[in-house]
Amino acid sequence: MKYPRGITPPSEGVIKKKRIINKKGNAANRGMVFENDINASNDFYLKHNRALISKRPTPINIVKVDYARGAKIKEAYFEKQSTTDYNGVYRGKYLDFEAKSTQSKTSFPLHNIAPQQVEHLKSVIRHGGIAFFLINFALLNETYLLSAEYICQFYEEQPRKSIPIKDIRAKGILCKESFLPRYDYLAAVDEFYFSKKEK
Amino acid sequence: MKYPRGITPPSEGVIKKKRIINKKGNAANRGMVFENDINASNDFYLKHNRALISKRPTPINIVKVDYARGAKIKEAYFEKQSTTDYNGVYRGKYLDFEAKSTQSKTSFPLHNIAPQQVEHLKSVIRHGGIAFFLINFALLNETYLLSAEYICQFYEEQPRKSIPIKDIRAKGILCKESFLPRYDYLAAVDEFYFSKKEK
Repeated sequence: MKYPRGITPPSEGVIKKKRIINKKGNAANRGMVFENDINASNDFYLKHNRALISKRPTPINIVKVDYARGAKIKEAYFEKQSTTDYNGVYRGKYLDFEAKSTQSKTSFPLHNIAPQQVEHLKSVIRHGGIAFFLINFALLNETYLLSAEYICQFYEEQPRKSIPIKDIRAKGILCKESFLPRYDYLAAVDEFYFSKKEK
Repeated sequence: MKYPRGITPPSEGVIKKKRIINKKGNAANRGMVFENDINASNDFYLKHNRALISKRPTPINIVKVDYARGAKIKEAYFEKQSTTDYNGVYRGKYLDFEAKSTQSKTSFPLHNIAPQQVEHLKSVIRHGGIAFFLINFALLNETYLLSAEYICQFYEEQPRKSIPIKDIRAKGILCKESFLPRYDYLAAVDEFYFSKKEK
């Protein structure tokens, strides 16, 4: 587990996806760095028996398969994730979250959130799970846990098209950063969901 | 939600996968029928606000992508699921399970279980989640919830290479079958995990 920032262990999927996303340019690239850091944090949590949290594979729509060559997929397309990127179990509770990185220094734009993700998060809450966003302000080196309750309400009322950073700082929990785990977001989960304090 | 047994609503992924697996022959085919029935049960549960449970997408190893044609995947291969097929949230708890169909009338062969799945299930239990197998005896029309605790112990001690059906009948919970949900496995979860009775 000695991978520097932004680098996860070389599992096939991650490497390939990274190569693909690199071509899309810098913003996606930095989003990928954040994703890899979260994946590495999850590996750390698993190894140290803190939690079991994994990334959902990207859904792929398969069109053509060549069976003569050991089920080689010859035509397929990426599909949009209709739920969130991560889920798992922590302290007996179901955990579900989306990790997003933004280049903005002032706010988190709502266009980062799809309507079906809001529906999914509301459903998680309804069934007693813990749901949140991890929002990374890449240029500020600040990452916040913001509850899905807050985000869904903001999304539906839409007083603005983005959540101002001052609101995120006030309502969210800052995630401590270190070498490993890169983002100790479970400490933020403890503070927000298990300490009984109302924010 | 008026789909007969074995037929799920026509979402792209399911249809394509079905077409693929059909070529593998009858056993895989019947496994697919069971999977589709579980998916339909999950859709029913979601619609009726009972639980939020979804199938993990099959991980795919992508080798070649053509960006000139809108990110068309030109070469990729199916990968083995290293965890389980399903997870989600029910009554605030994290739920994680694998659904397997067997043609045997006498036992459930252990070769249906991969070592990394046993590790995954043990990790779920360690973190306070609910973990189990749904085992469908296709030729008997009987489906059982069998706890991961029991299965992991059997797997590690391996007194036999398969779990006899009489043990599954004694230690598992029979899932009621109906039109919708096809398999009411949450009733079995209630009975086993929430009623405080020891089996």
